[in-house]
Amino acid sequence: LDSRLPAVGTTVFTVMSALAAEHGAVNLGQGFPDFECDPKLLDLVNDAMRSGHNQYPAMAGVPALRAAIASKISQLYGHDYDPLTEITVTAGATQALTTAILCAVHPGDEVIVIEPAYDSYLPAITLAGGVPVTVPMQVDDRGYSVPWDRVAAAVTPRTRLIMVNTPHNPTGTILRRADLEALAAIVEDTDILILSDEVYEHMVYDGERHESVSRHPVLAERAFVVSSFGKTYHVTGWKVGYVAAPVALTAEFRKVHQYNVFSVNTPMQHGIASYIVDPRPYLDLSAFYQTKRDLFRTGLAGTRFTLLPADGTYFQCVRYDGISAMPEAEFAQWLTSEIKVAAIPVSAFYSQPRESGIVRFCFAKRDETLRLALERLASL
Amino acid sequence: LDSRLPAVGTTVFTVMSALAAEHGAVNLGQGFPDFECDPKLLDLVNDAMRSGHNQYPAMAGVPALRAAIASKISQLYGHDYDPLTEITVTAGATQALTTAILCAVHPGDEVIVIEPAYDSYLPAITLAGGVPVTVPMQVDDRGYSVPWDRVAAAVTPRTRLIMVNTPHNPTGTILRRADLEALAAIVEDTDILILSDEVYEHMVYDGERHESVSRHPVLAERAFVVSSFGKTYHVTGWKVGYVAAPVALTAEFRKVHQYNVFSVNTPMQHGIASYIVDPRPYLDLSAFYQTKRDLFRTGLAGTRFTLLPADGTYFQCVRYDGISAMPEAEFAQWLTSEIKVAAIPVSAFYSQPRESGIVRFCFAKRDETLRLALERLASL
Ligand SMILES: CSCCC(=O)C(=O)O
Ligand SMILES: CSCCC(=O)C(=O)O
Repeated sequence: LDSRLPAVGTTVFTVMSALAAEHGAVNLGQGFPDFECDPKLLDLVNDAMRSGHNQYPAMAGVPALRAAIASKISQLYGHDYDPLTEITVTAGATQALTTAILCAVHPGDEVIVIEPAYDSYLPAITLAGGVPVTVPMQVDDRGYSVPWDRVAAAVTPRTRLIMVNTPHNPTGTILRRADLEALAAIVEDTDILILSDEVYEHMVYDGERHESVSRHPVLAERAFVVSSFGKTYHVTGWKVGYVAAPVALTAEFRKVHQYNVFSVNTPMQHGIASYIVDPRPYLDLSAFYQTKRDLFRTGLAGTRFTLLPADGTYFQCVRYDGISAMPEAEFAQWLTSEIKVAAIPVSAFYSQPRESGIVRFCFAKRDETLRLALERLASL
Repeated sequence: LDSRLPAVGTTVFTVMSALAAEHGAVNLGQGFPDFECDPKLLDLVNDAMRSGHNQYPAMAGVPALRAAIASKISQLYGHDYDPLTEITVTAGATQALTTAILCAVHPGDEVIVIEPAYDSYLPAITLAGGVPVTVPMQVDDRGYSVPWDRVAAAVTPRTRLIMVNTPHNPTGTILRRADLEALAAIVEDTDILILSDEVYEHMVYDGERHESVSRHPVLAERAFVVSSFGKTYHVTGWKVGYVAAPVALTAEFRKVHQYNVFSVNTPMQHGIASYIVDPRPYLDLSAFYQTKRDLFRTGLAGTRFTLLPADGTYFQCVRYDGISAMPEAEFAQWLTSEIKVAAIPVSAFYSQPRESGIVRFCFAKRDETLRLALERLASL
């Protein structure tokens, strides 16, 4: 069978988690919490199953969940999406991203991707017959930033879509108002669409706020905004996400969604619909993770790693040039097998070989897990 | 936004379920049970959630579930798939079908689809850039059958895939040994692949057996065989299915799967993995549904509908030429709004307009639901 995705191997997350298990390493690689979610959320899913919510839900999502999502977005970001025609529940954010790409990108269309980028973006573009055009982020001592002049220079008459991700995986950077303005200036007089991956929207630190693309009128009117409950509610295995987009974009999204997965697990949707009406769990999330970030950063400050800023997400990037000159993938493997702490090489988020001497740690872990990892990392 | 699927509207199932709700009709349209699943299955999912199975599962599926699926297939159909490399758990059968098409079909490849066909097949082929080549089933007084000579005549050097579906939705026919032999003769000396939709595998009546494509060595070695737990366990909203395919096909399937949904709901997978080890629920399913089929057929025999054979699935097709000369879609709408029994027009399963004067009823309903529908249908 001739491959449609010849360049694709097993994702780095699977590879590093397997290596961590093999070596009994503390797994700070793949991004997922090692603690439990709120038992109340489990009660609500269980209640939904017991009250008979087990057959096909509406294709676009359980109405109560769509209404709750729209109301959350309205309150937090001031944009009103119509739950009937502008919100679609998806089988996780990855399905939302891939479906948006499949519905928007025609063969030959160009899609601008800012790298490092989550590893599903490029294969999805390839599958749609699109042409990825990558723009590398700048990285210096103050960390990573998006060079908007280079994004602007990458635009051609065939550019169909620009993908953004804030808070950003793997770098932990966030887009600020000035970034959204720069992006808006690029797309304003074009018919370029935006696909915004905002799955870490509720993890932004030091009093900054999440600048959702849905906040910005010029962007919102042309954007698919994707988020997920897995990160927010500590249930990465539930695979429930959503996309918010203007009615014309949502109509095209649903055409593909309907024949991709048709719909999303009914009891999970009902459980989340009941849970999400209380805003505290997501409003409290930044403070919860900031404490973990600070614990982890304070510990790392006593090691030979150099910290990069971590303004959002549950990831911390570090330089290791004070420790080793190995390429990133090799260093991450060595760290896992010898030091027993798994990390992800940032090079895995680039389509072309690129070495920055930086690896990513996930700090969505119990404090004792972080302490054990820090102890081991301090030995370097 | 220029549509990638300009021909696609809302699925007929959603449309007819909405119409049924609007008119308070007995909904024998969209295929789903109106009764509950085994509470033991809910207990097992709940147990899985409580024991912390809420983070990312393995991309290809929870190992215990894959092993149980392989063992079931081995026992029932005598083909041994390796759970590690040949079984992949999917977010329902629709995702499995679309993902198989996306990984196997290159732009310009032809895919043979036997019609009437489930409505996701053609859009998925279009999305992959493939060219659907449709072959209509024959229909006469003995019901529907596949004209294998016409399938053979549709093969060209560009044929990449032939899709089959047994037991067959909407016609309720099943493929028999001779059908598989005819199909094998067509593909034997070619590199044509098979995509077999077998989601109704456990609903085959009158002592016949399900002829899974995985039973036939010539077919199995080139086939993606798709099934689902939604139909088998009365939980159509859970969206957990799977694909079994030789290692080379599975490798390509997973490349797309990994970037389409990445993985499937963890607690549901664990719950089903514990439940599936008891074969009785799926072994007893044919008898369970045959009783309903017989109740429904006996009742219909006293009406002016003409029964077609119903050898498998939970669908019963009927001719209504003794009642009306309306086109199918119109008749189904009239039946829903005036007689208060919803049905699905079989014309909705054809890509080209085609009128056979046949509609489909779903008999996966409580006996009292079926009796109420029969009462209303007898008034015609
Ligand atoms: C789907 S596994 C990847 C988890 C994740 O988002 C990450 O580690 O970056
Ligand atoms: C996904 S809704 C369609 C259910 C079904 O398979 C049918 O009614 O044929």
